[in-house]
Amino acid sequence: MNIANIIFLSPINQELEVLLENYHINKKIRFLTEENLNGEDLEWADALVTFKTTSNYDYSKVKWVHSLGAGVDNFTFHNEWKDDVILTRTITSFGQRISEYCLSYILKDIQFHEQFQYQKSIKLWKPITPKMLNEVCVLIYGTGEIGQKIAEVLTGFGVKVYGVSRSGKQKDHFADILTIDSHYSLLSQVDYVINTLPLTEKTENLFHAGIFDHYSSIGFINVGRGESVKEKDLLQAITRNQVRFAVIDVFANEPLPEDHVFWEHPKIFLTPHISAVTTAKEAAECFVETLENIEKNKPLPNRVDVKQGY
Amino acid sequence: MNIANIIFLSPINQELEVLLENYHINKKIRFLTEENLNGEDLEWADALVTFKTTSNYDYSKVKWVHSLGAGVDNFTFHNEWKDDVILTRTITSFGQRISEYCLSYILKDIQFHEQFQYQKSIKLWKPITPKMLNEVCVLIYGTGEIGQKIAEVLTGFGVKVYGVSRSGKQKDHFADILTIDSHYSLLSQVDYVINTLPLTEKTENLFHAGIFDHYSSIGFINVGRGESVKEKDLLQAITRNQVRFAVIDVFANEPLPEDHVFWEHPKIFLTPHISAVTTAKEAAECFVETLENIEKNKPLPNRVDVKQGY
Repeated sequence: MNIANIIFLSPINQELEVLLENYHINKKIRFLTEENLNGEDLEWADALVTFKTTSNYDYSKVKWVHSLGAGVDNFTFHNEWKDDVILTRTITSFGQRISEYCLSYILKDIQFHEQFQYQKSIKLWKPITPKMLNEVCVLIYGTGEIGQKIAEVLTGFGVKVYGVSRSGKQKDHFADILTIDSHYSLLSQVDYVINTLPLTEKTENLFHAGIFDHYSSIGFINVGRGESVKEKDLLQAITRNQVRFAVIDVFANEPLPEDHVFWEHPKIFLTPHISAVTTAKEAAECFVETLENIEKNKPLPNRVDVKQGY
Repeated sequence: MNIANIIFLSPINQELEVLLENYHINKKIRFLTEENLNGEDLEWADALVTFKTTSNYDYSKVKWVHSLGAGVDNFTFHNEWKDDVILTRTITSFGQRISEYCLSYILKDIQFHEQFQYQKSIKLWKPITPKMLNEVCVLIYGTGEIGQKIAEVLTGFGVKVYGVSRSGKQKDHFADILTIDSHYSLLSQVDYVINTLPLTEKTENLFHAGIFDHYSSIGFINVGRGESVKEKDLLQAITRNQVRFAVIDVFANEPLPEDHVFWEHPKIFLTPHISAVTTAKEAAECFVETLENIEKNKPLPNRVDVKQGY
């Protein structure tokens, strides 16, 4: 497939323009903002590169859409997609980044950072033995690129890691992978739950009372999508100590509205969607590699299966 | 060497007594406290097993002293030792435990736990990209069992790890190991310093202004011994931002006295000597293994070189 004209529509356009100069890719590129994008641009372009757009553009006019992020629900969720338009996504160090994010909050918990900070504040010398990672059991929802990387990092410390996926197909670094339907019996032994699932019709509101009711005093970490969690049910699960604390990086509405109850909840840690950041350098690398693969008709490991939504 | 009579003198005697029953070691054991230990006991005993004692006993009366902790300065530091008394120490999961302790505080820092907690408290949505571990440089003082394990864990994440040791001898998992005299040129590029050194005549007050002056905005983690740090110089280094923050698990006086300035210092995190805890189970295992090695005249990997003090 030939790609001649490309539109970049992103807040990191300036950095990308500088970085792409080093690759001499010899394409006509328009670096645009949503404000100055018009109908003619989409007629002109073969490809569109963007994180997400606020307007719902007619993507069927281009041959290829490349997402600068790993999540593509902005393109696929509740959205028609023309089969012959290729959709690819950025795959870079997300897995490693999210692994370090999750590990930091698990370690914070088992090393009693907060307890010791409290004891310091009242000048109390009271030894408590930290738990070791090899005493911990983690359940990861989603066993794709990111879930697998988290499992690899955690099992390196002797963590017992289970996975949940649509198919239940076994993969490396997981003690076992189950389907949603078959995973309930596991839940009483789990210490931490990590959600890495993409947003699809099947994962929307997946975390509801019917699942929370099976947890017992877990740490709940959401690095997938906010829409996968029924917020009221999560709050109830915290009240019932089914969830001991939650670490949330992704929200149905971002930025999180100022009047949202999460802001003032003592058992919820918030981070502003930073667990898997696309740096301009990595974005440029992945874009150039994908472009090359497309033009040479090579396999596209980062192509999105639009029907499945990831 | 034959060991018939053994004294256990420790706060975990009760647990050890239960655990040792499973080993059927067929020795005469007296489980004592310092209060009810008398001169006759030491005449009777071939071996003494203890963490540390407040009184300075005449260890020359026994054939073997086994330390339930990894640090043995209580026996060797400013203390005469009779050459033919064997001194061994407990080596168990200390390296792994201390690695997880150190990693938790490095991740807390590069994942901006405190910054995000602050932003939450003022309802500020402001993304900041966490640093990745592979962008970080760590210097470990001490390249023995514990220092090596920390280096192994950190390099697994792509951390650049340097070491400092008496000899400067190269070891696995370190980009380079230098001696104290030759390590100054390195210090400007270091992000975190971890002290694992035992207390000896050479390491007492090692961390003084002459070294702190070469640091630039580091995180300082002390899991070695409190006496290795000149406290006034550390406080000055924090004021000068040579040390950005300190995480301290070991103190010259433990429990840390209530009027100590560390308690209220905002840039110092304190933990009550918990980074490497000896569990009764691990202590029993290591003791039994060492006893066997001694009786069968096998090599003792955990024997202390009393002259060097570790």
